[in-house]
Amino acid sequence: MKLEMICTGEEVLSGQIIDTNAAWVANTLMELGIETHHRITVGDRLEDLRDAFIERSHHADVIIVNGGLGPTSDDMSAEAMALAKGESLIENEEWRDRLISWFSKNNRQMAKSNLKQALLPESAVMVDNPVGTACGFRVKLNKAWLFFTPGVPFELKHMIKEQFIPFIKSEFGISENTALKKLLTIGHGESSLADNLAELTLPAGITLGYRSSMPHIEIKIFARGDKAINQLAEVTKAIKSILGIAIVAEDRPTLAAEIHHRLFQSGFSLSLAESCTGGMLTSQLIDFPGSSSYLHHGLVTYSNESKVKVLGVNPQILDDHGAVSIATVEAMARGAREILDSDFALSTSGIAGPDGGTEDKPVGTVAIALATKHVVYSQMVKIPNRSRQLVRSLSAAIAYDMLRRALLGEAVIVDYPSITRFAK
Amino acid sequence: MKLEMICTGEEVLSGQIIDTNAAWVANTLMELGIETHHRITVGDRLEDLRDAFIERSHHADVIIVNGGLGPTSDDMSAEAMALAKGESLIENEEWRDRLISWFSKNNRQMAKSNLKQALLPESAVMVDNPVGTACGFRVKLNKAWLFFTPGVPFELKHMIKEQFIPFIKSEFGISENTALKKLLTIGHGESSLADNLAELTLPAGITLGYRSSMPHIEIKIFARGDKAINQLAEVTKAIKSILGIAIVAEDRPTLAAEIHHRLFQSGFSLSLAESCTGGMLTSQLIDFPGSSSYLHHGLVTYSNESKVKVLGVNPQILDDHGAVSIATVEAMARGAREILDSDFALSTSGIAGPDGGTEDKPVGTVAIALATKHVVYSQMVKIPNRSRQLVRSLSAAIAYDMLRRALLGEAVIVDYPSITRFAK
Repeated sequence: MKLEMICTGEEVLSGQIIDTNAAWVANTLMELGIETHHRITVGDRLEDLRDAFIERSHHADVIIVNGGLGPTSDDMSAEAMALAKGESLIENEEWRDRLISWFSKNNRQMAKSNLKQALLPESAVMVDNPVGTACGFRVKLNKAWLFFTPGVPFELKHMIKEQFIPFIKSEFGISENTALKKLLTIGHGESSLADNLAELTLPAGITLGYRSSMPHIEIKIFARGDKAINQLAEVTKAIKSILGIAIVAEDRPTLAAEIHHRLFQSGFSLSLAESCTGGMLTSQLIDFPGSSSYLHHGLVTYSNESKVKVLGVNPQILDDHGAVSIATVEAMARGAREILDSDFALSTSGIAGPDGGTEDKPVGTVAIALATKHVVYSQMVKIPNRSRQLVRSLSAAIAYDMLRRALLGEAVIVDYPSITRFAK
Repeated sequence: MKLEMICTGEEVLSGQIIDTNAAWVANTLMELGIETHHRITVGDRLEDLRDAFIERSHHADVIIVNGGLGPTSDDMSAEAMALAKGESLIENEEWRDRLISWFSKNNRQMAKSNLKQALLPESAVMVDNPVGTACGFRVKLNKAWLFFTPGVPFELKHMIKEQFIPFIKSEFGISENTALKKLLTIGHGESSLADNLAELTLPAGITLGYRSSMPHIEIKIFARGDKAINQLAEVTKAIKSILGIAIVAEDRPTLAAEIHHRLFQSGFSLSLAESCTGGMLTSQLIDFPGSSSYLHHGLVTYSNESKVKVLGVNPQILDDHGAVSIATVEAMARGAREILDSDFALSTSGIAGPDGGTEDKPVGTVAIALATKHVVYSQMVKIPNRSRQLVRSLSAAIAYDMLRRALLGEAVIVDYPSITRFAK
């Protein structure tokens, strides 16, 4: 089965929005072992859309068309498809009734323009969208099924999972015979990971992929076929043994997700005292519903005065050692933990740049501490001089990893590849 | 001049990296008045590349090809172009010498594979790349100039600015006669903005575009030609008068950028006390270098105990009114402001969902307060029931807008379109 994608919309073509839909779709299908072969992005011009539909229908077996299903005049996917197929648009009664009842249920006036969303090419098969006002549809043209999906990301995701994947499975007999394992790493670049893993002989049917998601690189171990699937655990173990502490989570998109999961399950409480990470630790956890069950507070004490007043850091410590120091982050973590007697507290203070570096403490110098009820762990690292954003996100990752290792009963402070640790 | 783009690389096609290069190029050229008409994304397959080059060379006047210029075997743009043109690859002596001297200057051993980067199609014109080892080149095929650029983002940006734009200006006589104004809005959907602005008659040469950047929609007013440029201020004024308080910033990408700019200039200090926004207010400001000059702290007091202990909220208030209430956010803002006697403090507390709603206070109910040295402003709003992320980001935007309006000496609390305000 040859799969292609056509993305529509002037705002995508003109770069006003970055096309995360296309990446999400390709990535999601890739995890099922289905490759995307070709992608076209076209604007809101009827002829361009029609030409793209016709041209690609000779090459692909199935084409996901994304966007252009809305109520406004620049939404013209259905019209372009009707043109390409040489048929007219007719009102889909089922969807028209669904629109009318959706608006009345939500106490909203339906604009006349919304009825346009029920107009489909004559030969189209309607595809349900329980989470929005744009139904999808599919049309067969030449050798291809064109499958039309909404541009709103969560509607698209819903339709791909609930409708598109079942459709191609039944239409093309895609076997589910694949499995995927994901390992999250820190400290390595992609080529350095590949170099490290070069010694490994992979069994037939197992392939490795890398996805950069700063400050992490994710390793994807993809197994195709029963035999390979049976060997997946062993290959995973071998990779973990080669990369050691660089691997910080399994089958989690971020370290924050790993921490959320562990704290949510364990009943331990957490407080955060952030300076250079500036709320990143806190907001990454609060993104998860349920985080209120363990997160006491996240205190972004950006000024020295706030470190003193809110966290109770002794001003003498700040005077003697500076805000970016082992002594300061230890006092910050201790202070944040003690306010509500949390089980754990993390603190960060560093020089994120682009300014503020000194010879002793250049940009990228970050002090991090973890306080438990009994002891405070701390370290000062030098993050390879990159962007402000990377200094902050890598600091947050190291802080989370200290907590993760403590929760597992492992050594809290370790030497990550490419990150220098200052002697105490 | 008809411009198109061809993006290459398996990792882009398969969604392992999101194609920010394509958006950056289209956006940069759009701001010069040059539209992108079509974009293809192809993987690292020689025939697919060759076919795409040939096919599009009949449609476009100029095609930017991005990626595939590296030293490894999956970099095959030059080879595919030579195939498409029916010519051989020859070594460009100038670039070969540059490579040799670049590596020796950087004290690095040049791998043999790097010499591949000097192999260009016979009829190619070499394009300089002073910031990397991949030179660009351009080749005329059928009606189109294909212009090859490196995939590394900063090398691409450099080449587009320094080489590509001058090239098309001289080749196609592009005039620079365009201007752009951007207005940031909240509370309207795109179709509602379009409906509101339908009454407006735009002068010739002025067009409107919309860019969704939740929780905002940005209106782009684009003027082409001297006459239209002269009318841009007047059109902007008319749009502002129609949309009123829905417009929250001009020529800024976010409200946080507007607040950063105003506070940085004014010397006023700010403290934040966040509950449902969970560090979003804080981290959006800390993203800007220089925010430490005005931001005292951001206290994410997620638990009730933290509101009491850190902000000094009277427990009786929490008992009587609940965490999501006017009384609580007023006490939070007052408390956060008083710790360091900041000029301003913002506070938020709300039900971001998906759980936690009640009949009285459904998901999307958010209380927001602004404390100044003299008075506390507060409101409780109902954000249309959407995602947890949207409830939080729209709450943050309303909080920032309260501060923005206070800094301008305007009414702090206003009724935004589509956002209901609870009676006090």
